[in-house]
Amino acid sequence: MPTDSHRASCFLSRLLRDHTTDELRERLKPKTQEPAPRVSRDPHISANAVDRRWQAFAAQPGCRAALLDPQTLEQMECYQHNIENFIGCVKLPVGVAGPLRVNGLFAQGDYYVPLATTEAALVASYSRGAQLISEAGGCTAMLLNEGMSRAPGFAFTTLEEAGVFIVWALSNLEQFKREAEGTTHHGQLIDLRITVEGNHVYLNFEFTTGDASGQNMVTIATEAICTYIQAHSPVLSRYSFIEANLSGDKKASAQSFLSVRGRKVTAEVILPTDLIAHRLRTTPVQMVNYWRMSAIGGVLSGTLGVHGHYANGLSALYIACGQDAACVAESAVGITRFEVTDRGELYAAVTLPNLTVGTVGGGTKLPSQHACLQVLGLAGPGKAAALAEVSAGLCLAGELSIIGALCAGEFAQAHRRLARGGARPDVTRKTTDG
Amino acid sequence: MPTDSHRASCFLSRLLRDHTTDELRERLKPKTQEPAPRVSRDPHISANAVDRRWQAFAAQPGCRAALLDPQTLEQMECYQHNIENFIGCVKLPVGVAGPLRVNGLFAQGDYYVPLATTEAALVASYSRGAQLISEAGGCTAMLLNEGMSRAPGFAFTTLEEAGVFIVWALSNLEQFKREAEGTTHHGQLIDLRITVEGNHVYLNFEFTTGDASGQNMVTIATEAICTYIQAHSPVLSRYSFIEANLSGDKKASAQSFLSVRGRKVTAEVILPTDLIAHRLRTTPVQMVNYWRMSAIGGVLSGTLGVHGHYANGLSALYIACGQDAACVAESAVGITRFEVTDRGELYAAVTLPNLTVGTVGGGTKLPSQHACLQVLGLAGPGKAAALAEVSAGLCLAGELSIIGALCAGEFAQAHRRLARGGARPDVTRKTTDG
Amino acid sequence: MPTDSHRASCFLSRLLRDHTTDELRERLKPKTQEPAPRVSRDPHISANAVDRRWQAFAAQPGCRAALLDPQTLEQMECYQHNIENFIGCVKLPVGVAGPLRVNGLFAQGDYYVPLATTEAALVASYSRGAQLISEAGGCTAMLLNEGMSRAPGFAFTTLEEAGVFIVWALSNLEQFKREAEGTTHHGQLIDLRITVEGNHVYLNFEFTTGDASGQNMVTIATEAICTYIQAHSPVLSRYSFIEANLSGDKKASAQSFLSVRGRKVTAEVILPTDLIAHRLRTTPVQMVNYWRMSAIGGVLSGTLGVHGHYANGLSALYIACGQDAACVAESAVGITRFEVTDRGELYAAVTLPNLTVGTVGGGTKLPSQHACLQVLGLAGPGKAAALAEVSAGLCLAGELSIIGALCAGEFAQAHRRLARGGARPDVTRKTTDG
Amino acid sequence: MPTDSHRASCFLSRLLRDHTTDELRERLKPKTQEPAPRVSRDPHISANAVDRRWQAFAAQPGCRAALLDPQTLEQMECYQHNIENFIGCVKLPVGVAGPLRVNGLFAQGDYYVPLATTEAALVASYSRGAQLISEAGGCTAMLLNEGMSRAPGFAFTTLEEAGVFIVWALSNLEQFKREAEGTTHHGQLIDLRITVEGNHVYLNFEFTTGDASGQNMVTIATEAICTYIQAHSPVLSRYSFIEANLSGDKKASAQSFLSVRGRKVTAEVILPTDLIAHRLRTTPVQMVNYWRMSAIGGVLSGTLGVHGHYANGLSALYIACGQDAACVAESAVGITRFEVTDRGELYAAVTLPNLTVGTVGGGTKLPSQHACLQVLGLAGPGKAAALAEVSAGLCLAGELSIIGALCAGEFAQAHRRLARGGARPDVTRKTTDG
Repeated sequence: MPTDSHRASCFLSRLLRDHTTDELRERLKPKTQEPAPRVSRDPHISANAVDRRWQAFAAQPGCRAALLDPQTLEQMECYQHNIENFIGCVKLPVGVAGPLRVNGLFAQGDYYVPLATTEAALVASYSRGAQLISEAGGCTAMLLNEGMSRAPGFAFTTLEEAGVFIVWALSNLEQFKREAEGTTHHGQLIDLRITVEGNHVYLNFEFTTGDASGQNMVTIATEAICTYIQAHSPVLSRYSFIEANLSGDKKASAQSFLSVRGRKVTAEVILPTDLIAHRLRTTPVQMVNYWRMSAIGGVLSGTLGVHGHYANGLSALYIACGQDAACVAESAVGITRFEVTDRGELYAAVTLPNLTVGTVGGGTKLPSQHACLQVLGLAGPGKAAALAEVSAGLCLAGELSIIGALCAGEFAQAHRRLARGGARPDVTRKTTDG
Repeated sequence: MPTDSHRASCFLSRLLRDHTTDELRERLKPKTQEPAPRVSRDPHISANAVDRRWQAFAAQPGCRAALLDPQTLEQMECYQHNIENFIGCVKLPVGVAGPLRVNGLFAQGDYYVPLATTEAALVASYSRGAQLISEAGGCTAMLLNEGMSRAPGFAFTTLEEAGVFIVWALSNLEQFKREAEGTTHHGQLIDLRITVEGNHVYLNFEFTTGDASGQNMVTIATEAICTYIQAHSPVLSRYSFIEANLSGDKKASAQSFLSVRGRKVTAEVILPTDLIAHRLRTTPVQMVNYWRMSAIGGVLSGTLGVHGHYANGLSALYIACGQDAACVAESAVGITRFEVTDRGELYAAVTLPNLTVGTVGGGTKLPSQHACLQVLGLAGPGKAAALAEVSAGLCLAGELSIIGALCAGEFAQAHRRLARGGARPDVTRKTTDG
Repeated sequence: MPTDSHRASCFLSRLLRDHTTDELRERLKPKTQEPAPRVSRDPHISANAVDRRWQAFAAQPGCRAALLDPQTLEQMECYQHNIENFIGCVKLPVGVAGPLRVNGLFAQGDYYVPLATTEAALVASYSRGAQLISEAGGCTAMLLNEGMSRAPGFAFTTLEEAGVFIVWALSNLEQFKREAEGTTHHGQLIDLRITVEGNHVYLNFEFTTGDASGQNMVTIATEAICTYIQAHSPVLSRYSFIEANLSGDKKASAQSFLSVRGRKVTAEVILPTDLIAHRLRTTPVQMVNYWRMSAIGGVLSGTLGVHGHYANGLSALYIACGQDAACVAESAVGITRFEVTDRGELYAAVTLPNLTVGTVGGGTKLPSQHACLQVLGLAGPGKAAALAEVSAGLCLAGELSIIGALCAGEFAQAHRRLARGGARPDVTRKTTDG
Repeated sequence: MPTDSHRASCFLSRLLRDHTTDELRERLKPKTQEPAPRVSRDPHISANAVDRRWQAFAAQPGCRAALLDPQTLEQMECYQHNIENFIGCVKLPVGVAGPLRVNGLFAQGDYYVPLATTEAALVASYSRGAQLISEAGGCTAMLLNEGMSRAPGFAFTTLEEAGVFIVWALSNLEQFKREAEGTTHHGQLIDLRITVEGNHVYLNFEFTTGDASGQNMVTIATEAICTYIQAHSPVLSRYSFIEANLSGDKKASAQSFLSVRGRKVTAEVILPTDLIAHRLRTTPVQMVNYWRMSAIGGVLSGTLGVHGHYANGLSALYIACGQDAACVAESAVGITRFEVTDRGELYAAVTLPNLTVGTVGGGTKLPSQHACLQVLGLAGPGKAAALAEVSAGLCLAGELSIIGALCAGEFAQAHRRLARGGARPDVTRKTTDG
């Protein structure tokens, strides 16, 4: 994270404009006065507990009403197992993109995709891409693999001990499966991968997780396995942890590309030239020119995979549909590829190795999130694979639309128009915010 | 994204259990029947437009009420410049973590941090970490750099032309600054970085963006510069794009570590042994053991930087406070480092190079989001640098708490207890979801 | 590869000091005059062919004698299958490091390791590390996995076709093994991994390769499989290639960490405090301080894995022992880890996932290379696994020695003394080269 | 570096075929018997010292003669400052590729490129590519930037101290330049980049290094700066190191792409369709098909940049011309891009950010290495920039030739023919080595 000396000096000058060095040093020191009061940690959501929390911090008038509208007040107990220290709800506006036609192994039909975001132009752009895909007969989507893992780590004194442990672990895989199955009806241990680094051994336990995204399920199943290991291993680890940061949880990683985490999906569409001319005001050749330059741009900047902006669509979909929004950090990686076909059409494909989506568990049962899944037609058991395929189709829609806008020279205009209220360019000059 | 042959065969068998190969092939083909009806694209949010959209898709009863509570119905016009194809609002429960004491160059004091998530245990864990930090006198935080960029790309016929273009661009930097300043009161062009790859030239225009996160601001400023370039460059590009995917927008990238995107912050705290014993039921030595093993785990899995779960805290904070949640994909990277000090205490630090936060613009003015910023005490102009420092402090709290739980063997228990309703372990065996 | 505007302007000024812009542009243009004469492409190495080549370019006197010493002239036909357009031999000085004691699954005993390099201090440093390890009883080394792959790629028109192809390929794995076995006595196809990206399918064929590093062996075996595929696949690819750049050949890649390429080895040693004090003039604690800071340094700079300088030892060993020196690009990745043990000793380990070494084939039979393998005691069949373990031990020696020097403040001194001829510091000021 | 359970079990079975578990454990244990005798560490190369070393290890007859031919015996003192523990020379056969026409800012003309390798087909392939480029009028090459760095690291107790240190360092840049200039006539400190990670500060000192590759030069200059820092800094570091692994030395890193290390060069050529048909027996369209599929392959495998096999050409050139062969690990990264032009020709470009080449210092003065530089026409001062441009041109030649072979289906054949002695395919089945 280097800063060159010129830039650092400028930054420093700005700092020292307002404060002396001594003042700044003082600000950085630990302060020993009593901290502000804790918020009530009453684990049950009740009017009383919420009241006490609001009293803890002297909030400006209106804050409380903004977070605790009547409906929220009424139904707040439904959040009991999804939040702690509850003070209300934040509202994100939801727009619908689509319909998006998906021809998948699991998803079949035209989907209205609810997207929650506060960023102007996002829904409009994805919706344009979705409609374009649908006009072309829909995108083909294929779930390629699925699995969720936990990676406990075991530290031994020597490599020799590590070796003995591995030999034992390999011979106990069936027992590990039984231990795991004792904790869940839906998850199944399907593989064990072993990583040795000196006297450290990491075990990647890979599970299928039914229609849940499954992070909690695999944590609990792995805990059972670890308990068994501690009781039966012929060699004692100096210390071990149920997760040693080799599962890729909540982080973009190269590992996603080289195995699977969550659900791996690829989706493609072929778009005729005149459809692109009509809807996007550009050509397949120009879109491929963009793809090539942007793919190299991605590689030069050191991204994992190469794509445009999967995170926009995925975060909006995850938030609307009760998925774990933090998982966007790991899900928003993959490969976008555009080509001109022999017949001059545009071939476009996206591949995402790490979609952590589920249709049961997590936030999927909360009222507004469940409603969004219902609008999508994918609420409840038996729908997770389809949700993964729709997610990939959505990303494909987003790539087509943004690249279309960049090729047609409409990218900045769209943001200006939708974020700043339709004003004409000459009016927006000297606007005041971001 | 390889799948080994054994795993692929298993996956295939499952697929073929329910469908013949021919049926599956049929599912994948484009379908030419008329798509489902479009949703109304009326850009203005009105009761009428919303009505028409709900009629487009035959939603199950209750969906609409879940997304359109009375308060939302009343205030829905406030979302006019933040969403398109509006159908209502999704509600995310907000919990408060803290107080978190931050001794920053900009942030000073004890902060109550509103976090929006549907994942159990998240708020409890961050809150525990925040209180721990506060008990130790707070964390020291330092904004290190700031900047937001756009990276237009220019394709020439030859490297020779590219060279002529670069020479010209370098001599026009002052003019580019003037063009940029014509579009914004708050942003300022502070640097131009040039990347040549064969006959392709990428220009990274770096801006400061005041208290906005600034992505739209830099887009519009860069558009003005590109217009100037097209009018005045002595050599014509074959084609160019206002963003050629070298800015790192919405993607984790190595580039973040080697320059800055958004705001770069580092935060540290020193925790006495007895505080760790008392609050986390573990020791500095064991926490450093975990850090070491997990840092190697991160490296082995090919993450950018090494850390635990920044995305959890950042996504919850971004959603609550009207930040762009899609930016979690780029923000959730950095370095966590734990050491035992000479006096046996725990030294812990986090460094995040890519915090895309702002206190004006985007979703920061929406009612519930603004309320969250007010709870935090960081609403409005002059607060973005402090918000960045608080964000880093929050990530530090999260790392301390999760590593504490992993060391004390409480990680799985916490999730079981909070997500599954306080049931005892023997009851939770054979639960049914993720 | 951006250059900031200030740096770019400086660089440009330097360029324009010697040439006008027009002159520079002229230099860059293609030149149409007849190229200089080709060198003789006679594939057989003979005095005549060599003569003709030297006549083609008007070399300065002495060049020819420097490359064609009497011994080379006499034995030059031995290079027949290792080089084309032969003009002589370059001589690299060889130094011996060690003895290095290795306690491996395969390597057992004390090894004198021949290293070929022109970089001063390299052999001295590795030798110091090797002796240190030997004094501590040797390093433990463990071959963890082995395999060499080729990754042909197949492009189809649609994902549907790709799916049909995969189903067919999975059901033909046994036939692929037979095809491969028809080309080699030593290699064996052990796995097939499948990667789907839109309508592209990559097949990673993984082989064991006996005591050869095996790149040619797997190429020829994969060619036989591809011929079978083209003759029998139920769906025709639009085009296919025997290697589609997914094997990691000749490039550092994250894939090495997440599977294996060549041979994967880990090696460790525990060094008592007084041995470190005596031989390295530092302490375990200080060496771990260095490790921690340098591991973070590696992560910050975006390396694959974290280590110090594996490439130094590996390139010198590969060149001396007839290995493919280009493979250093892929082999020189991995993890170095240092810790202080509970008893205050230093624990040090290296793990290298991608050692492409062999003791037969390639350059291993050439006279001086074979002699080096004999000095090492690892020439000929049955020795490749041991060579991999010794290579890891060598890297461990190098890490210990360089970190020792950095901790003792002797790093620059060693280079000054050995590269610049033992001169005292005050004399070396104002020396003239690199 | 995970191994799946099936593969691990197979590997284990093979191990246990030859040894019991107890035998294997015994092999892994440290062994305390006296190590084999050390080799003489006499720093001067003399007949006597060499003799004593050969006596230390009981080498097989013929080894010594293979490494100590008469010419080597006679001139061995010339290696005095390039090797320690000298026992002779290894000989690598050198072939000439070219002529390669380069139209660079610095390189101008037709170059005969000496390449040292033991890998069959390498020289033939690069030579074919070089001639192809020359027939098309040569490649255009442009040095884009140059710089070599050292990155000392300083550990403080707190971030506050780190801040004070940075402020001081920024204000002493001119003094640092003077300190550096006191150690070298050729190097110049041109920038300082600062990286803060908690209480750690890394300073990247960037230098120009004249015609040397410069690693030693910058080490010695940085040592002088560090001595100054230790004497004058207002705040004492707990510890510091002259290199904290943030310079990218000897390792492929993302940092190379985002700044420069060594010399950064881009090279391009446009090849007419009929030249490709005639020389490579394929078409521009097919070569671009390969490029696209292989670029994605590179991204999927997690390489830094995307290219084919730069390491082959660079290692052979570096070894022949007295460059540091270990630097191939860092140099062999970059971007290859192929496109079809509007006129149907092939556009091909390579960009390498990290060419660590020099024409003075290191091994460049040794007899056979100097001869190779003379054959190339680039020996001695004033030639390093041209050598960098020729290196890039060579990589371009290699990419064109290998992709041509892959497209024409000749890749395996070439290796079979040249490595296995021109035998016909039916004869090579069942050959015996790699």
